[in-house]
Amino acid sequence: MDNFTYFNPTKIHFGKGQIATLKEEIAPNSRVLLTYGGGSIKANGVYEQVLDALQGCSVVEFGGIEPNPHYETLIKAVAVAKQEQIDVILAVGGGSVIDGSKFIAAAACYDGDAWDIMTTDGDCVRRALPLGCVLTLPATGSEMNKNSVVTRAETQDKLSFGSDFVRPVFSILDPQTTYTLPPRQIANGAVDSFVHIMEQYMTYPVNAKVSDRFAESLLLNLFEDGPAALATPDDYEVRANLMWTATMALNGTLKNGVPSDWATHAIGHELTALYGLDHAQTLAIVMPALWRYKKEQKKGKLLQYAHRVLNITSGTEDEQIEQAIQKTEAFFTQMGNPTRLSDYNLSEKDIPAVQEKLTEHGMLALGEHQDITPHDAAAILKLAL
Amino acid sequence: MDNFTYFNPTKIHFGKGQIATLKEEIAPNSRVLLTYGGGSIKANGVYEQVLDALQGCSVVEFGGIEPNPHYETLIKAVAVAKQEQIDVILAVGGGSVIDGSKFIAAAACYDGDAWDIMTTDGDCVRRALPLGCVLTLPATGSEMNKNSVVTRAETQDKLSFGSDFVRPVFSILDPQTTYTLPPRQIANGAVDSFVHIMEQYMTYPVNAKVSDRFAESLLLNLFEDGPAALATPDDYEVRANLMWTATMALNGTLKNGVPSDWATHAIGHELTALYGLDHAQTLAIVMPALWRYKKEQKKGKLLQYAHRVLNITSGTEDEQIEQAIQKTEAFFTQMGNPTRLSDYNLSEKDIPAVQEKLTEHGMLALGEHQDITPHDAAAILKLAL
Repeated sequence: MDNFTYFNPTKIHFGKGQIATLKEEIAPNSRVLLTYGGGSIKANGVYEQVLDALQGCSVVEFGGIEPNPHYETLIKAVAVAKQEQIDVILAVGGGSVIDGSKFIAAAACYDGDAWDIMTTDGDCVRRALPLGCVLTLPATGSEMNKNSVVTRAETQDKLSFGSDFVRPVFSILDPQTTYTLPPRQIANGAVDSFVHIMEQYMTYPVNAKVSDRFAESLLLNLFEDGPAALATPDDYEVRANLMWTATMALNGTLKNGVPSDWATHAIGHELTALYGLDHAQTLAIVMPALWRYKKEQKKGKLLQYAHRVLNITSGTEDEQIEQAIQKTEAFFTQMGNPTRLSDYNLSEKDIPAVQEKLTEHGMLALGEHQDITPHDAAAILKLAL
Repeated sequence: MDNFTYFNPTKIHFGKGQIATLKEEIAPNSRVLLTYGGGSIKANGVYEQVLDALQGCSVVEFGGIEPNPHYETLIKAVAVAKQEQIDVILAVGGGSVIDGSKFIAAAACYDGDAWDIMTTDGDCVRRALPLGCVLTLPATGSEMNKNSVVTRAETQDKLSFGSDFVRPVFSILDPQTTYTLPPRQIANGAVDSFVHIMEQYMTYPVNAKVSDRFAESLLLNLFEDGPAALATPDDYEVRANLMWTATMALNGTLKNGVPSDWATHAIGHELTALYGLDHAQTLAIVMPALWRYKKEQKKGKLLQYAHRVLNITSGTEDEQIEQAIQKTEAFFTQMGNPTRLSDYNLSEKDIPAVQEKLTEHGMLALGEHQDITPHDAAAILKLAL
């Protein structure tokens, strides 16, 4: 078990009707920047609940934050936050809205070029506006962590930053808000959560029993309730378990005492930036191929996953591992994210650009052993044609 | 899955050599009240590591905090904290030292009668001195929660309080500090942790998959590493897994979305206050008897425990439940805590006093259904003769 530091002060209000707790979390007369995405919150009743709870506050709206939030959009919100002397940002939406709002919160308090926040991985952040969240899409875990991913559209750069200053002060999770989500978003969220768990689990054994068994717990939840959420969209219990599983998947709990991988995310980000694939699609393509490419180094954990999560016991070790990878691929496919580049009309000729972008972004040594070069990334993608 | 609010801002530094992080957590020139217990920290090297990391601070020592910390002792420390104008309390020890230090932290900032803190369950607490911890005994989870249990020796009252103001700002967990613990303390700690998990698990099913599977994960860890810690006291991995399991058992994670019981603790506290039994001994006596007494109401979770944790599959449901209870009793006994009153020279004549004390303390409706009266508690204890 490796040494670790754990810190997560975000308060969670979870369950039916919890949007009303906004009254407790945001002081009356506050100047609130209400950030959101494409406007679905105005169709599903969330917007009304939020405004009702914010009575007495001055609310300035900033909608239109897109999936894979764009720097070019966010910087406009930063100007609004400064001009309107905003006290608190309330992000209402999924991971993209929350990630974007973290950037806004930090940039509104930063005097230099706001893009510095991305290029320094948040190191230049010294303060931020307080951020609260009303989560409507279980997927990224952003509602309870310090991380954010922002895309600069003009250069196709998709970068991440992290800072304790942008941790949400509170997040509200009402599973009922997810009933009206398009199936594709629920499916993508389940795949995203699944891969978040795996990035912290599928490395090599260090006998960290809490993190290992917690990860296996969350994987089991997703195998059960990912498909169930698609089959019965208004089953509260299913949505509740999916939502809390997705948050726990990336709030720091699972990485305590274990190595992390994150190569799948790094390679996937380039596929999204270059070819516009959904984040979850990129993960479904890269992870199984990466496991096959790194089968020897990941053998111990691949077998542990096969035994404890998938209940695979027959065959040689290699056969058990291949069964585990195939079952994972089947899950991704079942959740609407097939696992081959060709499923998205991409082919071998599209791989060199990924390799180049990884090099350009300094992603030269990925994975838990820092031994996945851009050249290896290209080899991994060739296993996913 | 029930609604919940979760909040836990305590920062954890876990692993080898982490006591040195005190330098980062406590500002130079601070006036530190160093609280500890019987003085074992001066024999095992912890004291030296702490003082070394606190160079530049003014350190005032207050040792001698006893197991089941006494109000009469703690109130002396409160006087010292006020007189010495203490900035921060550093508790070095196990749950008793940390619980006691939470009381000191709150009472040092309270103007009324300090016992009010206990009788109001912490509601009268409005501020407290900042508290840091160096944990040397994995057991109570106090290092990462807001709770404290204090005993008033003169009246044999053992009461608890909770307040966000006394949550440790940081806690340092170095498993190496536990190598020199007496086997009885390691064994008691494992039983205590086990019962903490069960108080939040063994109620009735509400389909809260994260909390259920996390609880089962931690129970498996204890079944494996409780006995291992006794067999090989200087195995770092075993001690590390035991230590982090004990913290996660009672830091709020497991209670998210589920009902809680806590009747075993309430009844056990009276046994300790009246007859001086170790906390873990009282839990080992009460819990199996309580499960038998409430077998019908707890049936769903007893069977889930039998299947998922103990891998019991043969026999009728009643037989499976009885097997599960017997395996639990065997674990307690293996960990040095037999499960009958007679094992501690107590008998039926000692039960009425427990019933009276529960009544006196207003413990009139215990358990997840609030249907365990002091009369029921007596009936439970009769099942543990």
